[in-house]
Amino acid sequence: MFAVTILGNNSALPMHDRHPTSQVVAYYEHLFLVDCGEGTQLQMTRYKIRRNRIKHIFISHLHGDHYFGLPGLLTSYGLNGRTEDLWIFSPPLLKEIIELHIKAADIILPYTIHFVAINKEMILYEDKKIEVSCFAVSHRIPCWGFLFKEKVKSLKLNPDKLKEYAIPSSFYPHLKEGHDYITKTGELIKNELLTQVPEPALSYAYCADTAYNERIAEIISNTDLIYHETTYLDIQREKAVMRGHSTTKQAATIAQKANAGKLIIGHFSSRYELLDEFLTEAQSVFENTALALEGTTYIISK
Amino acid sequence: MFAVTILGNNSALPMHDRHPTSQVVAYYEHLFLVDCGEGTQLQMTRYKIRRNRIKHIFISHLHGDHYFGLPGLLTSYGLNGRTEDLWIFSPPLLKEIIELHIKAADIILPYTIHFVAINKEMILYEDKKIEVSCFAVSHRIPCWGFLFKEKVKSLKLNPDKLKEYAIPSSFYPHLKEGHDYITKTGELIKNELLTQVPEPALSYAYCADTAYNERIAEIISNTDLIYHETTYLDIQREKAVMRGHSTTKQAATIAQKANAGKLIIGHFSSRYELLDEFLTEAQSVFENTALALEGTTYIISK
Repeated sequence: MFAVTILGNNSALPMHDRHPTSQVVAYYEHLFLVDCGEGTQLQMTRYKIRRNRIKHIFISHLHGDHYFGLPGLLTSYGLNGRTEDLWIFSPPLLKEIIELHIKAADIILPYTIHFVAINKEMILYEDKKIEVSCFAVSHRIPCWGFLFKEKVKSLKLNPDKLKEYAIPSSFYPHLKEGHDYITKTGELIKNELLTQVPEPALSYAYCADTAYNERIAEIISNTDLIYHETTYLDIQREKAVMRGHSTTKQAATIAQKANAGKLIIGHFSSRYELLDEFLTEAQSVFENTALALEGTTYIISK
Repeated sequence: MFAVTILGNNSALPMHDRHPTSQVVAYYEHLFLVDCGEGTQLQMTRYKIRRNRIKHIFISHLHGDHYFGLPGLLTSYGLNGRTEDLWIFSPPLLKEIIELHIKAADIILPYTIHFVAINKEMILYEDKKIEVSCFAVSHRIPCWGFLFKEKVKSLKLNPDKLKEYAIPSSFYPHLKEGHDYITKTGELIKNELLTQVPEPALSYAYCADTAYNERIAEIISNTDLIYHETTYLDIQREKAVMRGHSTTKQAATIAQKANAGKLIIGHFSSRYELLDEFLTEAQSVFENTALALEGTTYIISK
C-alpha cells in the first residue's frame, strides 16, 4: 500500500475546522510524516494514525503552520516511552529550536533524534524499495518539496514456468535482472517465458508551499499523485505571487505539465469557507483533481 | 463580570478530546490568557473567545503542554494584522524561544511583544480595579501560580441621601474614602448615612502544575475561586509526588485550608477517560468542587 492521508489542509490561520499542514505518507510498513502544523498530534488521534510507526519526519520549511505541532509530538513520544530513533529532515534552524524547547522543559527524551539539515536537492531516505528526495520550491524562505519514488521493481518470477523448465533456484536472481537461461544441453530459454512484467513503480510528490514554478513540473514529471498547494482562487493570482503561493489554475498547470496521474490540492486560505470553487477551477485545467480533505486517504496508483 | 473559561483541562498528552492547559480570565473589558497549550487558538475559535481583547498572557512554566500553542497564537495575531502591544509574563527562556521561531520564519510581527521575565513573587499587572501577582509553586522546573485579585472597592454613594443632605459634589471623593461630612452649621453627618457598603472584592487563584504545598493555601487564603490541578486520583499519591503533581484530595485540602469559596480541578492525566471519580474524591474533602470542563465558564463570586 502506497497512500497519503491528509491531517491538515488549511493555510496559516486554522479555521473552518481545517488545520495547518500535515500529511502522512504510508508505504507498506513505513509511515512518513510530512510537515507537522499545530494540532497534528490531535489529528493523528482523530484519524487513528499509528504514530509509533513514524521514523522519518520531513519538514518543508520553517513557517509555523508547517512545524508548530512538532515540539508537542516529540514531547508526547517521550511521555509515551518511545525508544526508537527518529530522523527529522528540515531546514537547519529546526534543530536549534527543538533543542531549546527541550532545554526549557528540562527533560531528556528517551529516544534519539537525528536532525538532517536540508541545504540542497538530495536523496534524504533510501531503502530497497523506495527513495525520498527533496527539491527546491519557490517560497519566501528556503522551502522544499518531497518526492517519494518507488524504485523500479525487478521482474516477477513465474513459479509454474520455473518448475516446468526446471530452473535451478541459484539462477533466480539473474532471471529477476532479465537474463535468459541456458540449459545444460545448451538450449536457450528466453527470460520472458519465465518471468512476468513487474508492477510499475509509483511516485508521490509533495510540492509544499510554493509560487508557480515550471521547474517543479520537470522535476516531478510523470508522478502518479501530486499534492500541490492552492492557497488562492485564480482571481487572487497577484496576491499569490506576492506571498509565494499558488492559485488553483497554477497548481493544475503544474500537474498538467508534469503529466501527473492525479492532483490533490490544499493549503486553502482561511478567507474561503467553501472549497467548491477550488475544485472547479483546478479541474478546468487538469481534470483528475481532488480536494485534499482532512482524514481522507488518497491511494497512489497508476 | 469576573470569570474564567477553560480551554484545556488535560495534562501533557492530549487525549479523550481534552486539550492541554489554557484558560481565559475575563475581568470586565480585560481578557487575560493563562497558559497556552498546543491547540489553544483552535479552542479559542471553538468557544468564541474574542482573542483580540487579550493584552496580557501569563505562562506558568515551560513544559510544552502549557505553552506550545503560543507560537501559533502569536503568528496568527500577526497574520490578522494586530497592532496592539502584547505583554507576556513567563519564565525567562520563553523570550529566546519565541524570538528563534520568529527568526526562523523570517517574519516581522506588526505588533510589539513585551516579555516580562518572572524570577520572583511579584505583582505582574495592576490597574485601578485589579491586580495580578505570581506565587511560586512546587513543580519539577520553576513554575508559578497566578492570583487575580480585585482591589478593595471604595464606598458607594447613595444619590438620594446626597441630595437630601445637600452634600457638595466636591466632597464626594472624601465620602468614598469613609469620611463624615460636617455642614456649614457644624452638624456632623455620619458617612454610613450617605454611602453604601461596596461589593466585596473578588479573587481567583490559578495554582498551575504543583505538588501538594500548604504554603499555597496561605498565599491564596480566602480566594473566591481556586483552580488547582489534580493530575491523579488519590491512589496515585506517590506518583504525584514524584512528578510534581497533585491528587484530588490534595487539591481539595488546599482549597479547604485556604478557606476557598469554590474549587475547580483540572490537568487530568490521559490515563483517565472518565472524570467522575475526580469529582467524588475531591468533594469528599471540599464539597464545593467542580470539574474544570473545556468550554465552560466559571463565574467568580462570593
